[in-house]
Amino acid sequence: MTGQGDSGTARGDKTDPGRFFEDFALGETIRHATPRTVSEGDCSLYTALYGGRHVLESSAVFARALGFAGRPVDDLLVFHIVFGKTVPDISLNAVANLGYARCRFLAPVYPGDTLSATSKVIGLKENSNGRTGVVYVNSTGVNQRGETVLDYVRWVMVRKRDPETPTGADTVPEMETSVDTAAFRPGGDIDYAAYDPVLAGSPHFWEDYEPGERIDHVDGMTIEEAEHMMATRLYQNTAKVHFDQHAADKGRFGRRLIYGGHIISLARSLSFNGLANACRILAINGGTHANPTFAGDTVYAASVVLEKAEIAGRGDAGALRLRLLAAKNRPFSDIPPEEWRAGGNADIVLDLDYWALLPRRAG
Amino acid sequence: MTGQGDSGTARGDKTDPGRFFEDFALGETIRHATPRTVSEGDCSLYTALYGGRHVLESSAVFARALGFAGRPVDDLLVFHIVFGKTVPDISLNAVANLGYARCRFLAPVYPGDTLSATSKVIGLKENSNGRTGVVYVNSTGVNQRGETVLDYVRWVMVRKRDPETPTGADTVPEMETSVDTAAFRPGGDIDYAAYDPVLAGSPHFWEDYEPGERIDHVDGMTIEEAEHMMATRLYQNTAKVHFDQHAADKGRFGRRLIYGGHIISLARSLSFNGLANACRILAINGGTHANPTFAGDTVYAASVVLEKAEIAGRGDAGALRLRLLAAKNRPFSDIPPEEWRAGGNADIVLDLDYWALLPRRAG
Amino acid sequence: MTGQGDSGTARGDKTDPGRFFEDFALGETIRHATPRTVSEGDCSLYTALYGGRHVLESSAVFARALGFAGRPVDDLLVFHIVFGKTVPDISLNAVANLGYARCRFLAPVYPGDTLSATSKVIGLKENSNGRTGVVYVNSTGVNQRGETVLDYVRWVMVRKRDPETPTGADTVPEMETSVDTAAFRPGGDIDYAAYDPVLAGSPHFWEDYEPGERIDHVDGMTIEEAEHMMATRLYQNTAKVHFDQHAADKGRFGRRLIYGGHIISLARSLSFNGLANACRILAINGGTHANPTFAGDTVYAASVVLEKAEIAGRGDAGALRLRLLAAKNRPFSDIPPEEWRAGGNADIVLDLDYWALLPRRAG
Repeated sequence: MTGQGDSGTARGDKTDPGRFFEDFALGETIRHATPRTVSEGDCSLYTALYGGRHVLESSAVFARALGFAGRPVDDLLVFHIVFGKTVPDISLNAVANLGYARCRFLAPVYPGDTLSATSKVIGLKENSNGRTGVVYVNSTGVNQRGETVLDYVRWVMVRKRDPETPTGADTVPEMETSVDTAAFRPGGDIDYAAYDPVLAGSPHFWEDYEPGERIDHVDGMTIEEAEHMMATRLYQNTAKVHFDQHAADKGRFGRRLIYGGHIISLARSLSFNGLANACRILAINGGTHANPTFAGDTVYAASVVLEKAEIAGRGDAGALRLRLLAAKNRPFSDIPPEEWRAGGNADIVLDLDYWALLPRRAG
Repeated sequence: MTGQGDSGTARGDKTDPGRFFEDFALGETIRHATPRTVSEGDCSLYTALYGGRHVLESSAVFARALGFAGRPVDDLLVFHIVFGKTVPDISLNAVANLGYARCRFLAPVYPGDTLSATSKVIGLKENSNGRTGVVYVNSTGVNQRGETVLDYVRWVMVRKRDPETPTGADTVPEMETSVDTAAFRPGGDIDYAAYDPVLAGSPHFWEDYEPGERIDHVDGMTIEEAEHMMATRLYQNTAKVHFDQHAADKGRFGRRLIYGGHIISLARSLSFNGLANACRILAINGGTHANPTFAGDTVYAASVVLEKAEIAGRGDAGALRLRLLAAKNRPFSDIPPEEWRAGGNADIVLDLDYWALLPRRAG
Repeated sequence: MTGQGDSGTARGDKTDPGRFFEDFALGETIRHATPRTVSEGDCSLYTALYGGRHVLESSAVFARALGFAGRPVDDLLVFHIVFGKTVPDISLNAVANLGYARCRFLAPVYPGDTLSATSKVIGLKENSNGRTGVVYVNSTGVNQRGETVLDYVRWVMVRKRDPETPTGADTVPEMETSVDTAAFRPGGDIDYAAYDPVLAGSPHFWEDYEPGERIDHVDGMTIEEAEHMMATRLYQNTAKVHFDQHAADKGRFGRRLIYGGHIISLARSLSFNGLANACRILAINGGTHANPTFAGDTVYAASVVLEKAEIAGRGDAGALRLRLLAAKNRPFSDIPPEEWRAGGNADIVLDLDYWALLPRRAG
């Protein structure tokens, strides 16, 4: 033993202070901590938290009949886990999460797979006030075989360490507003011809949806503190605004904020009632968390079909571009159609623009 | 791409409206959606939700020593999952869940098994007011090998689409009040001679219980909103009264109702203290959810031994017919024995009549 | 069938009354009920409840690279499960949990392992008032291969059945205040040379900590009723003070008490921020639950480095003796260093003295 003591002073240098704007370098690749093996247990918790009924995630028998290696892990669970890993390095000192784009789901993840994450800094732009800057990263989630399963761009406003010294950073990457359909990876080994709509819970195939169509998903789900915290911890997302009521008491809202991804997952689960066969997420074009949500809020969901696209070389499945909306404490039956968008009214909390795969009607 | 748009009107025809009384045909078999692979994760959640200590579900080593292929999935978890699948087709427009009967557990379910459910319409009787009718279904849960693991009858009162047009439906199936002991399937490959009562937690075998015996299970468990909602979502049960506080605010109770099956599972778990060796459920004869429960209620349980039966050809195990009671916010030590039944007083919330298997004392 | 009836009276002798002081015999070994197979689902729940990010429990790939057979089950989850098994036999009639000591983690536990527990009575001392006595037990958790994975001493004050009749019991075992480093079992097959600090989330190795160093782990976590009850049920811990609000209404606190182990796990998880590489618990020397916690409390954590020790024959890892503190509703930045101990102030709820393994910096 090399000593004993109880009277020293804190070094205070071992906790993670997070990165400030000056700590990011253009072109740098950041390896994020805490690779994560995803398990059947994670999938069960995801079901318990959101009540999802999409059939591929529910039945290994159904999934294997189409060519999957087993039940795939829910696409959004994969997103939340990868996203969670980036938080300590990217957004611990973030003033605001400004957006995400070009998010592509590139390969199914199965229980037993281990995901790790990296982010490449692709843009840095100091704000004119000198106190903050915008950091653009391209984050990827990779499985234990080195295959990229998720790839997206995100940008956040980060505090500068030193507001007095300009960095001159002025690089903003170009970003498309919708992921190119050629970038879809629907799975070459998957055949949706065997898709059984009765077991899946809906007779409505890709052919049955048309751009402009609006769907009120009807059902509502009230959120509890224990639920959103268990979800956010499951994703190993450490953003403290979700967990610390003592600190929140003195904050702007007086409440713990609910992780935006929790609302996305709730809305996606509620969208089963009307879009049961939107069984895989191909891409997320972007999204806005238009208003904060808190425990006790009841979330309702609606969708608008924005576009229809064929998937290159595939007669068994097509793509729908969907606007997924969530509102709090107000069913969409009470919301005029012109307000079905971020900013439409104060009750809209989510406006997500994504591409989903739907099976096409056989023969 | 075939178009883009954001100005259309809702078709409103893709969400599931549920079946009305006229939509059921006598003799029809309904295949339910969302087959479900049951996992170790589901079992862990079940433990976290109810705290069960029955040894077969807890220890794979113990279960294998008796001839099980591993830890069986809790019988009631199997029930809740199969039941949940029937909800969208059978009871979405139900005015009332009237009863269930002749529920037999026919084979153990193991993690990794995939359950699917079908229901056969075995009775239809229009009510004299013309506005509703009673639908009787025989529902079965089947594993991935096509083996029936659960078989029960349930009847619900369902709204008619058209109250003005009589259907003439007047078929009521016959139902025994207690499942015939010849219908028990205790498992030909299971040998309870190896059952270790010390590890199981109780020295009381089948021989030690007598009809008329009453057991106050003593312990109480308070229910939280997050718990009953996580449970009900885990079962993929979509009945909206459990989830939507915003709608409940305007309803009869002003509260989210707790799924009756949650109370059954809580009471069964509490019954460990006094019936630890009632290790398998053979059959449920029927049950009554006598009063609603809400978050914040504390549930207590008691049992009454109704009958004892030998199991044909088995010297290693016998059957007890038990009345499982639950009360809210009142321990059974405060409830006079004559009130230990549905309707006995306003605090009784559950009166379940079931058959359990107990090991017999060796040689 | 041998009878039927509904009018008998309760025997009242089948529920577990627990042991009184006179029921313990010096030298006796008690086999505890309910062996438990630990699963991936348990680990997922543990993550959802505490948000742990220690890399060995998170990534099977990382753990295997060091020589583990897979992701080990969190040491404290093992502790809580083994501890839970002892409750019905040891502390059901406990007036107070007085302490624990000499707790050694002797082998990793993996999902799929089945744990069972026994306790040997190593001390009995009647208190001078004649109404209670102190029972000392040495409890061990054993896996399905008979290997001891956990070994600890615990003492509780237990009611006497008969206060009038003295037992004369007066045996108190000797106990060291800190586990001897020679008793550490860091795993002969594990090589920490391959430990990647970037993936683990911290650059601080064993060499970087010094006795006397204080670390404020900064983050806070607010506890919900649903969370601590789900945790405690997951551990199959039946102590009723955690679950029954109806009874608590008439009790001393008017609230359900939170299991002390829940606070230990929360504090350990929060300690990641500053002690990320304290990746295995070697031993717990002792601990004090200095004040009760209740739902709604926000827990903060801090650590003090008490000692540094080499591990015999190991150049790849060393041991730190740490004091892990938790406070409620008050960050450690607001607590003067001289109060960082049990009894330091009314907000300190935990003072745990333990040994952790940290990798040493390579070559």
